[in-house]
Amino acid sequence: MARISTVSASVDFEQDGKQTGYLTIPHSPHEDAWGATRLPVCVIRNGAGPTAILMAGNHGDEYEGQIALGELIRTLDPAGISGRLIILPALNLPAVVAGRRTSPVDGLNLNRTFPGDPAGSISQQITAYLSDVIYPLGDALVDLHSGGSSLDILPSAIVEPASDPAHMRRNVEAVMAFDAPLTVVISNLGEPRTSTAAAVRAGLTTVGTEMAGQGTVSRETLALCRRGVRNVLAHVGILPADAATRHNESARTVLEIPGSAGYVYATRDGIFEGAHALGDSVQAGQQAGLIHDIHAPWREPEPVFYGANGILFGRRQPGRVTHGNCCAVVAAPYAGDL
Amino acid sequence: MARISTVSASVDFEQDGKQTGYLTIPHSPHEDAWGATRLPVCVIRNGAGPTAILMAGNHGDEYEGQIALGELIRTLDPAGISGRLIILPALNLPAVVAGRRTSPVDGLNLNRTFPGDPAGSISQQITAYLSDVIYPLGDALVDLHSGGSSLDILPSAIVEPASDPAHMRRNVEAVMAFDAPLTVVISNLGEPRTSTAAAVRAGLTTVGTEMAGQGTVSRETLALCRRGVRNVLAHVGILPADAATRHNESARTVLEIPGSAGYVYATRDGIFEGAHALGDSVQAGQQAGLIHDIHAPWREPEPVFYGANGILFGRRQPGRVTHGNCCAVVAAPYAGDL
Amino acid sequence: MARISTVSASVDFEQDGKQTGYLTIPHSPHEDAWGATRLPVCVIRNGAGPTAILMAGNHGDEYEGQIALGELIRTLDPAGISGRLIILPALNLPAVVAGRRTSPVDGLNLNRTFPGDPAGSISQQITAYLSDVIYPLGDALVDLHSGGSSLDILPSAIVEPASDPAHMRRNVEAVMAFDAPLTVVISNLGEPRTSTAAAVRAGLTTVGTEMAGQGTVSRETLALCRRGVRNVLAHVGILPADAATRHNESARTVLEIPGSAGYVYATRDGIFEGAHALGDSVQAGQQAGLIHDIHAPWREPEPVFYGANGILFGRRQPGRVTHGNCCAVVAAPYAGDL
Amino acid sequence: MARISTVSASVDFEQDGKQTGYLTIPHSPHEDAWGATRLPVCVIRNGAGPTAILMAGNHGDEYEGQIALGELIRTLDPAGISGRLIILPALNLPAVVAGRRTSPVDGLNLNRTFPGDPAGSISQQITAYLSDVIYPLGDALVDLHSGGSSLDILPSAIVEPASDPAHMRRNVEAVMAFDAPLTVVISNLGEPRTSTAAAVRAGLTTVGTEMAGQGTVSRETLALCRRGVRNVLAHVGILPADAATRHNESARTVLEIPGSAGYVYATRDGIFEGAHALGDSVQAGQQAGLIHDIHAPWREPEPVFYGANGILFGRRQPGRVTHGNCCAVVAAPYAGDL
Amino acid sequence: MARISTVSASVDFEQDGKQTGYLTIPHSPHEDAWGATRLPVCVIRNGAGPTAILMAGNHGDEYEGQIALGELIRTLDPAGISGRLIILPALNLPAVVAGRRTSPVDGLNLNRTFPGDPAGSISQQITAYLSDVIYPLGDALVDLHSGGSSLDILPSAIVEPASDPAHMRRNVEAVMAFDAPLTVVISNLGEPRTSTAAAVRAGLTTVGTEMAGQGTVSRETLALCRRGVRNVLAHVGILPADAATRHNESARTVLEIPGSAGYVYATRDGIFEGAHALGDSVQAGQQAGLIHDIHAPWREPEPVFYGANGILFGRRQPGRVTHGNCCAVVAAPYAGDL
Amino acid sequence: MARISTVSASVDFEQDGKQTGYLTIPHSPHEDAWGATRLPVCVIRNGAGPTAILMAGNHGDEYEGQIALGELIRTLDPAGISGRLIILPALNLPAVVAGRRTSPVDGLNLNRTFPGDPAGSISQQITAYLSDVIYPLGDALVDLHSGGSSLDILPSAIVEPASDPAHMRRNVEAVMAFDAPLTVVISNLGEPRTSTAAAVRAGLTTVGTEMAGQGTVSRETLALCRRGVRNVLAHVGILPADAATRHNESARTVLEIPGSAGYVYATRDGIFEGAHALGDSVQAGQQAGLIHDIHAPWREPEPVFYGANGILFGRRQPGRVTHGNCCAVVAAPYAGDL
Repeated sequence: MARISTVSASVDFEQDGKQTGYLTIPHSPHEDAWGATRLPVCVIRNGAGPTAILMAGNHGDEYEGQIALGELIRTLDPAGISGRLIILPALNLPAVVAGRRTSPVDGLNLNRTFPGDPAGSISQQITAYLSDVIYPLGDALVDLHSGGSSLDILPSAIVEPASDPAHMRRNVEAVMAFDAPLTVVISNLGEPRTSTAAAVRAGLTTVGTEMAGQGTVSRETLALCRRGVRNVLAHVGILPADAATRHNESARTVLEIPGSAGYVYATRDGIFEGAHALGDSVQAGQQAGLIHDIHAPWREPEPVFYGANGILFGRRQPGRVTHGNCCAVVAAPYAGDL
Repeated sequence: MARISTVSASVDFEQDGKQTGYLTIPHSPHEDAWGATRLPVCVIRNGAGPTAILMAGNHGDEYEGQIALGELIRTLDPAGISGRLIILPALNLPAVVAGRRTSPVDGLNLNRTFPGDPAGSISQQITAYLSDVIYPLGDALVDLHSGGSSLDILPSAIVEPASDPAHMRRNVEAVMAFDAPLTVVISNLGEPRTSTAAAVRAGLTTVGTEMAGQGTVSRETLALCRRGVRNVLAHVGILPADAATRHNESARTVLEIPGSAGYVYATRDGIFEGAHALGDSVQAGQQAGLIHDIHAPWREPEPVFYGANGILFGRRQPGRVTHGNCCAVVAAPYAGDL
Repeated sequence: MARISTVSASVDFEQDGKQTGYLTIPHSPHEDAWGATRLPVCVIRNGAGPTAILMAGNHGDEYEGQIALGELIRTLDPAGISGRLIILPALNLPAVVAGRRTSPVDGLNLNRTFPGDPAGSISQQITAYLSDVIYPLGDALVDLHSGGSSLDILPSAIVEPASDPAHMRRNVEAVMAFDAPLTVVISNLGEPRTSTAAAVRAGLTTVGTEMAGQGTVSRETLALCRRGVRNVLAHVGILPADAATRHNESARTVLEIPGSAGYVYATRDGIFEGAHALGDSVQAGQQAGLIHDIHAPWREPEPVFYGANGILFGRRQPGRVTHGNCCAVVAAPYAGDL
Repeated sequence: MARISTVSASVDFEQDGKQTGYLTIPHSPHEDAWGATRLPVCVIRNGAGPTAILMAGNHGDEYEGQIALGELIRTLDPAGISGRLIILPALNLPAVVAGRRTSPVDGLNLNRTFPGDPAGSISQQITAYLSDVIYPLGDALVDLHSGGSSLDILPSAIVEPASDPAHMRRNVEAVMAFDAPLTVVISNLGEPRTSTAAAVRAGLTTVGTEMAGQGTVSRETLALCRRGVRNVLAHVGILPADAATRHNESARTVLEIPGSAGYVYATRDGIFEGAHALGDSVQAGQQAGLIHDIHAPWREPEPVFYGANGILFGRRQPGRVTHGNCCAVVAAPYAGDL
Repeated sequence: MARISTVSASVDFEQDGKQTGYLTIPHSPHEDAWGATRLPVCVIRNGAGPTAILMAGNHGDEYEGQIALGELIRTLDPAGISGRLIILPALNLPAVVAGRRTSPVDGLNLNRTFPGDPAGSISQQITAYLSDVIYPLGDALVDLHSGGSSLDILPSAIVEPASDPAHMRRNVEAVMAFDAPLTVVISNLGEPRTSTAAAVRAGLTTVGTEMAGQGTVSRETLALCRRGVRNVLAHVGILPADAATRHNESARTVLEIPGSAGYVYATRDGIFEGAHALGDSVQAGQQAGLIHDIHAPWREPEPVFYGANGILFGRRQPGRVTHGNCCAVVAAPYAGDL
Repeated sequence: MARISTVSASVDFEQDGKQTGYLTIPHSPHEDAWGATRLPVCVIRNGAGPTAILMAGNHGDEYEGQIALGELIRTLDPAGISGRLIILPALNLPAVVAGRRTSPVDGLNLNRTFPGDPAGSISQQITAYLSDVIYPLGDALVDLHSGGSSLDILPSAIVEPASDPAHMRRNVEAVMAFDAPLTVVISNLGEPRTSTAAAVRAGLTTVGTEMAGQGTVSRETLALCRRGVRNVLAHVGILPADAATRHNESARTVLEIPGSAGYVYATRDGIFEGAHALGDSVQAGQQAGLIHDIHAPWREPEPVFYGANGILFGRRQPGRVTHGNCCAVVAAPYAGDL
């Protein structure tokens, strides 16, 4: 069966001005046979020019982007831009409503479902519509993530690797333009099913973020997010150049997560006590923390160790861990060419 | 039916030295007909002297106390104390295993079940055993809490109010001895079903804490917790006086949550963005934050307001809120006599 | 422990005029440690006079009363009444939010929890507050029910039996004043834990209703409900006599459910096909319907039979039945004295 | 992997007479490692002639067709027909057992899984067997639906659109032969994954129905269903022409749901009160109902509006709505050629 | 509130002959507002004589007694008895339907709810009815248990201890009359909330059983159960003496579980491999088995040890264990006087 | 998208000696955004020679193989082998941790997911890695199963049919070498999605087992499993010939499950009482057992019947059955050529 979508948009992507409305996806569960999942969408267009796709709520428990894009919709004057913005502030609407990373409707992590499937579940239908309809309209993508409920991450803008060096440079420059305290290349161990991997395959200039996390709204990273989005829009020429602000010289230094060695996994069940603060320098082989025994707290806790040199870039938020949980993440200087 | 407990202790509360073992509560669910819930317990005793009961894991997702008490068990030399310690580092074991505030076995918040019921559910059997057997052995209680998964709270030691002024002074002095950055009187709006309210009714010198929270392990409050427990033990004469350390002059100033006016509740569903940082001075009537609309992010967010003057003492951790969620908590100077 | 409630009301029950606000019940689950369940409440008072308590949402999936009381709050001019109204349009707030008969918080049917327990779960705390604080303020109670998701019932006003003949007459007259198409005495087989049984024990003139059901909003019974509430208020002297309207002569004939013989239960699993329409005359021993076999639809369906003479007063809404489900309910002429 | 099914039929589709038995689909969950899902099936055959496939229980909470097909199996004399009937009265057996629209086994709406997958979940295996084995045996399909638990729909027979005009005429004539009060073209917004869309792709003359709904068994639509099935069988020549009965002249007028404008979706959470009765004439822009606020019933309810002219064809059954729920459906005169 | 039950019995406990019917307990959940839980009951009476209460399905996954009592109902000729039998083959009906130890309705283990509560949940209402109505009618109780899903137990008849020596002798003699391979005194560590503890408090001659278990139906213990029930009925004089059969001389030797030392609990999570077969002689301090590490199977498994001398009386059925699970149970010669 | 796996192995499949480590599969659920599912793996290699893949925990509640492979890892000296072992003792790690047949992560039976999908859910990613990486390294596969929680099966080694006669002979000889009491050909009704069907398609000499079951650890079949694995390794030349032991002459007689006639399914809900013991001779048409009615135990139970001649090879473990559950399985002499 061809990729025929039943998603309908109440906005006209080619019309000038500011429109708000919904992407309506028919959804037929027990509770609502002829109902719909409706993703809020805003199109702001002013004549010719590039198109930027701005998304948040890919994961429902990552909030700064959702708030920042709502503000942008409320405050941006179409007359002030050149080109077009397509803004999706609650991309994975069921997960946003649930306040969870993953969708309660199909149990999927939307950011592991690209390129989607129009005959699949809701998450797959959303990503199919992005892949088939939205991405082809775009020149650049900004997908705003935070660490979510399970991670606390140094605020940073993220580079999705592109195999084409020119495309890679485009991504790096746009990410540097965001002007986060850190610029980090994250390949998710080569994962091809993410929004940003799919965007790179579609040729878009691609910018990601990790805005702290902890499942909360941070006032500092919310401010960073507001500013970064405008910086990228100025970088791609949709906002005037003077809309950009620059604070973080460190954004010009590129880090990366050095493959699987960058992740410290729990080696048993218990309570994790980390040994360092975010940003501390750490060494491969150094103790990353202790896992305390719940049932026999008089036993010596079990140490876990870093597998790479660098800085502590992320840490597990919940104290309770089970085998395989990610306890710590190290970032190292980017080893590739730029 | 009389309050006859089937809980059995593998430790002898009257024996000198350090013993570790379990409080075994028969539990007969589908998966384990003749099984047991077993709470780790440690008794450290050295001759005559007062008895302090030290507890953590009353709520399963509050971790600093659990780690600190495990360390104390591993490191404390019985010869160094006078009297007795009864240490329960994972009081609500099923909740600790689940990493949740409440027990997955009976759905109860153990800290709303005092005085318990030996013929009730597991949480109620635990609190009945505390009420009937453990509390009568004690002179002082330290119940170590953090903010848990849903709150971020200024690290503080907590006074449970006692109606008897002498008892109140005993509590305040012991709490000041803990030497947290803040000393706060919290009555939980008069809630009589908590561990500390029950301890006060039992005549114990009673110390509570709130060690940050966010469902994580904070290295700073873990250090505070370690130190504070030893400070209280020195205060009550179980550890020598020189085991105490003093860092926080602010611990001598007593605050309180000024009744229901101290709590800011969400007035609609959405995403909460707070207006202030913990510790900021706030005024009654001042805007405490905004609740953003998920489905129509182009609508103006709804403001919520403080109901009391003071400092921002606690804030909601998860960004997602529904009607009635506690978004912010204000602490004010204690209005009672001391 | 004494029945000490931690519920706090933001309205003043003794103040003239119209106030809206909340009954705030602290609730401390995993997701919201210092949060609250907040029941909307309205007090409308104009000088001396009787007090009527008006409630809906006792069961969350019974909607007509909820809408009608919301309208009453919005539209009633305090100057037009004598005495006081205490209006609780969403009594079992968690169940109303869930759109279910029972509370998702504690799994209880609030209407089987009277007299409640201030140290119990949320449903029990709500009913304890009604029993201890609200009912003592009242002269009359109107508790607006519909059939809910599982039943379709002939629209009727319901008499809760009172053992005192004078009290019984008071109840019957107030129910007749409601002017529903039917007036029916329902004892719920002697069930003492309902709102209306508790109200009778508290001496209140008590009126119940059953407004169709099917888990939907019926425009006809919504109109009936609006009118009936005003009729009762006029009857008890809070509204002027001319606020009453009279349409249904049949309201003067009193029926009852004739004990356990009035209920037809499913005798096996399957799909129930009823033999009669609501209002049809039926006889004890007559076939009430058929239960069809799902797995072997070629088998003869199993008949079930009425146990009493009368009219078909209620019927099961969902087609799927399991053993013990109530398939049909018969009402007969009231056999008691009036 | 080729589409190799492990479904086995205990009936012989080519044998004369009446056989009942099962389509057995091996299913290997935790509770039953070597067990099976077994769909009741009946084949009635008498010599040469067309084959009609009769199905119900596609959605488990739509009952009239299930009962009517069970009766047909019990009562039809094979000698009275020419050709063959393949009858599946409980197509989505797990959903029928659950009394729910969707399957509790895989969470899927079977009617969104065509053409199925023999290597997929149970719902997908069922539809794969239909697509690969059953549909190729058929000339005509009757798939009997009702509105289910979430909708109340005007009883009607449904035309699945066919792009081939001759096929479309065949469908329309067969649907008119059913003789429901209404004949309505429903494309489900172009949805290709339904039983009827798949049947049209397979070349079958295709008839659908919507028999009221509300999750109940309606005695009126059950009678309509019994009669309509026989009418269609007479129309296609399996029953003699005089087996048909005609009551509804209105069946000759063809309506349609006019695309996405025909659906009214909830724009916020609350309780929906509809403004019209089924069958009422409505206009685009007219108020379709009100959504009442649960937490602040004193606020004005929010209106929702129709998007098309026509009659109110369907309405939401449950009073409780969340954003995106289908509140109302409009049908308009069919705009295509016939 | 007094203990007023709303349970109604469709059988007359004072009538001669054989009656089958239901104990009907009104139950008002979301799915069935006016429905009922209905426990099958049979009364067989023939003139004067003692009354025996026979129960099975106290735990839903213990099957031999359920089958044996069903057979007894079907086959026993009232003319063959003297006195009365009250037979409840599915005492905890919701658990029996679920095939689980505990009730899916309220999550309770019915056998930990005596003396019940008529104003409580369904399990509590059942046990209140037993305590208040059924037990007062009886002279003897036989409550037929098996090991259930989580245990495999040597088939045995069980003595509930009575503090009165004469009552204890009555119990022991009736249990020996059952003629199981073993006679074992089990106090459940003093648990007062069981059916048999409550029966002893009510003065009844009390017989329990443990018929293997494993959640299955054993043909051998089913035969034992059939025979044992008739043996007890002959012992108490309801059946003639020659209805008894005697096979097991070992039934005359009385064992007991020697308190908490008799139970071996899992000391960590993993997979339990037992060291002995049921019936093997074991010693305190001897290794009872190994717990294998799931995540690091290359680590040495952790041994667990017996705490008492005796025979291996019971063993855990599921291979998977978590901390606190009962892995093994030892029985020793009865240490009390007989 | 190509089959690109993100699974990473911490062991080197080409290195001599014994290595233990993990197959790490990134998994990004709500609770652990950057975490992993980590399957324990062991590679033991000594120079040139064949490669055997040894797996257990394909279903999480089948324990003997898991324990036996853990022991093999701990005890086998690399110097004692020729060639290579790849050992996966907990193949479906999430199911093993849950102690369930199927994965709690995606609800799938891993043994119905071959050839897997690297872009699918965790179970599908595991089987994709086996199909794409592990199987191509192997000459022989031993996949150790037991009956699991729902079945009790005569201990046996299992032949997966191969259409190529030489491959079939290879499989039969390797299975006979295992030396179980029975050798049985099981095609799972042609199911192509199992580990063994996929292994045969990949050309591997393939051995399966069914080691009793009941969800428990049997000491007898654990011993059988230990011995059988070494026998197969000797048979394929990895262990020396004298490492093999032979006990069961019956292993040379080949049985099979004779297609769908071999399975007896429950024809209604109730409690199943089997008529025979495992190993008994049974005839087609003979009564296989009775299904007892729960709600009306006074009704005659419903008999079910065998469909084939042979021996009773497997039986349902749980007493509770619903329609379609597998109650009994018959094995007959193998009818194919060998």
